[in-house]
Amino acid sequence: MSAENTSANYHHKSLVIGLFGFGVVGEGLYKVLNQTPSLKATIKKVCIKNAGKPRQAPAELFTTARDVLLNDPEINVIVEVIDDSVAAFEIVKTAFKNGKHVVSASKKMIAEHLEELLQLQQETGQSFLYESSACASIPVIRNLEEYYDNDLLHSIRAIVNGSTNYILTKMFEDKLSYRDALIQAQQLGFAESNPKLDVEGYDAVNKWTFLLTHAYGIITNPLELLFTGIQNVNAFDAQVAGEKGRVIRLVAQAKKLGNGKVAAAVLPQFITQDDHLSFVRNEYNGVVIESGFADKQFFYGKGAGSFPTASAVLSDISALRYDYKYEYKKLYHHTPLELTNDFYLRVYLSFDELAEIPKEKFEWIEEWHAREDRKYLVGVIHVRHLQTGNWWRENNTSLILQPDAIIENLELHNLKKKSLQLAGIQFHHQFGGY
Amino acid sequence: MSAENTSANYHHKSLVIGLFGFGVVGEGLYKVLNQTPSLKATIKKVCIKNAGKPRQAPAELFTTARDVLLNDPEINVIVEVIDDSVAAFEIVKTAFKNGKHVVSASKKMIAEHLEELLQLQQETGQSFLYESSACASIPVIRNLEEYYDNDLLHSIRAIVNGSTNYILTKMFEDKLSYRDALIQAQQLGFAESNPKLDVEGYDAVNKWTFLLTHAYGIITNPLELLFTGIQNVNAFDAQVAGEKGRVIRLVAQAKKLGNGKVAAAVLPQFITQDDHLSFVRNEYNGVVIESGFADKQFFYGKGAGSFPTASAVLSDISALRYDYKYEYKKLYHHTPLELTNDFYLRVYLSFDELAEIPKEKFEWIEEWHAREDRKYLVGVIHVRHLQTGNWWRENNTSLILQPDAIIENLELHNLKKKSLQLAGIQFHHQFGGY
Repeated sequence: MSAENTSANYHHKSLVIGLFGFGVVGEGLYKVLNQTPSLKATIKKVCIKNAGKPRQAPAELFTTARDVLLNDPEINVIVEVIDDSVAAFEIVKTAFKNGKHVVSASKKMIAEHLEELLQLQQETGQSFLYESSACASIPVIRNLEEYYDNDLLHSIRAIVNGSTNYILTKMFEDKLSYRDALIQAQQLGFAESNPKLDVEGYDAVNKWTFLLTHAYGIITNPLELLFTGIQNVNAFDAQVAGEKGRVIRLVAQAKKLGNGKVAAAVLPQFITQDDHLSFVRNEYNGVVIESGFADKQFFYGKGAGSFPTASAVLSDISALRYDYKYEYKKLYHHTPLELTNDFYLRVYLSFDELAEIPKEKFEWIEEWHAREDRKYLVGVIHVRHLQTGNWWRENNTSLILQPDAIIENLELHNLKKKSLQLAGIQFHHQFGGY
Repeated sequence: MSAENTSANYHHKSLVIGLFGFGVVGEGLYKVLNQTPSLKATIKKVCIKNAGKPRQAPAELFTTARDVLLNDPEINVIVEVIDDSVAAFEIVKTAFKNGKHVVSASKKMIAEHLEELLQLQQETGQSFLYESSACASIPVIRNLEEYYDNDLLHSIRAIVNGSTNYILTKMFEDKLSYRDALIQAQQLGFAESNPKLDVEGYDAVNKWTFLLTHAYGIITNPLELLFTGIQNVNAFDAQVAGEKGRVIRLVAQAKKLGNGKVAAAVLPQFITQDDHLSFVRNEYNGVVIESGFADKQFFYGKGAGSFPTASAVLSDISALRYDYKYEYKKLYHHTPLELTNDFYLRVYLSFDELAEIPKEKFEWIEEWHAREDRKYLVGVIHVRHLQTGNWWRENNTSLILQPDAIIENLELHNLKKKSLQLAGIQFHHQFGGY
């Protein structure tokens, strides 16, 4: 059974790649491809923005003219790993129209143009693969596509941003300040060039936007989802978490409710030790999927960095050899699910002044603590009060989800009744006394 | 973007299935398929052994005649989930020759006939998919096929047998006796009908045999691998583990050594709290993969049970719609790696009588403890001493790997030197004094 007489069984396309971007990921990909001749994929040309920079590759490989790649009939795959989502979308659009498959790592571009990108794939029939754009080395998109299309996906919870997870881990474990932890993340090369994108949750919610499509067939816009980042998480919150044996993580989550609709959010959350996500430290990412048949599954791997990202790009390139495309089965072959904003969240809120907190918006308050430096409460609130106001992100207020935070309307009544029976629980009409 | 005008883009085969076996997995599959009409796969006929048993499906679905399925030209997929590996192999062979794709869950059959099955796939060009046969709900084969073909796979460590893992968990956490834990596992339906297959490691080593093919291109025979099960793990071992903050798991592992060859074994191992595998409890399975580009990845999910297995079978069926086959890239497109038996293991050994232990076989002994009821030692030994003798499985002797057990020849010299410098370490020539 030698390699000679068997490889003939597999007639793969030869892939000629036009690469946009030669930053950490682009250069990583170039190195990785050079180490894997078996793939029979070659980079014919690399389009860069700044011709002057010294690069560790032959000069004749580079050009600053997009069309050299996009109009080259020999190039059949465009790989796009640039930082500019506007330019990226133009490149992808043209590539599709010129009959080229596209591999992309631009989560922002994909999230913002999801509907158009779906349309373009339909019209042109080209493959558009972007495994590297969410959770880098974890094959989350492919697994959602291939393994849950026939299964009842109860919920999916994930840490999708390596940079914020690194910062939170360092704040908790090494007691680093937020600023020092951020600088470390940037030096290690897994923070976005604009830290706001990571820290304020934009990167995570971008990824969540299209993961919701693969998980549930939902098409939405990142700004329509309830989200924030870790910008308000502080040492006081970390101390409270520690006292309860918990850590804080930025968690993207979605849950199918009893009414068939999906509740989704990207928010910091307290994580108990028995939660799989407590396992996810530093720049790693993790995905917990609960489904009807497969039950609970957990995927864990590096979510950021040059090689993990390049290796995911490479897997997409590899899949193009047998004309793989995402089928978006939940969107096209099933009845796509709808998002809902009609559910409740159990939240922790820390703040300096009670006067800043609209306590009347809470269904009830379960805990109430005042310390010298800062105060906090734990209560149940309808999401509309978070979606219509900014009060929970302002005035040094920090909102963190409790474990098992999502409460359905149906559950609320029972919980309320139970809560009333418990001593020491303060409903909002009794809250004025404090 | 309605379902009507888009699904036309995907011309999938319609799948007509002939199913062999209607036990927990077969019946699970039947139920799951009935709940997923979108798959457009139908079970035309089910072949069973015992016609008399009452079954929750229409009587006309069943037959006891193999050829009714195998010779039906309309049936294009044979799904085989029977317990008899001899019959299974006959069925698969005939199915291939009759131009049918095959989905199988028979790990024993696959492990024992690996080479012939590879040959048959080559000759007939039919797909042969068996994701459910290893780790049930974890897509480990597909991920090894798709995600590490271009990456340097340093090591893979896995818990692949849900039944033994359940027993070990119950022994540790609920202090159940081995016997009671086994009965529970059987009652819950995730133990093999012959418990010896699980408990003595046969099931795990069977799975490991073909996972080594997908991971490293290795073709071997289960009985050539160094393995045992959990039959000798006892309460004393559990107590020692507990004192050191460790648990015991049956771990299948393989590691690429410095000389380019692969060390592999399936043995019980002490697992520290920071090891991903410590996370894997009850009937769950877990796989930790370390690679050059993606770094460390961890996959976790239910490794046994009717629905997790049926859901993996279903994923294979689903993949057949676009003519997916395993490419065995490491075997055919790369230079396959070789197994080696030239390495050392750091082991814990507990026993009743020192006289039974060939202490001269150890390179050195690092720890030595005698208690009233039982004794144990920790030492470094060459694998040939385990492969050529049965002493470590007999006379109530229990062998458990230490964490990071595999030691390469190159490392040994340095370790020896270091060990000599440490007080209290007993080399075998000093050991006679005890």
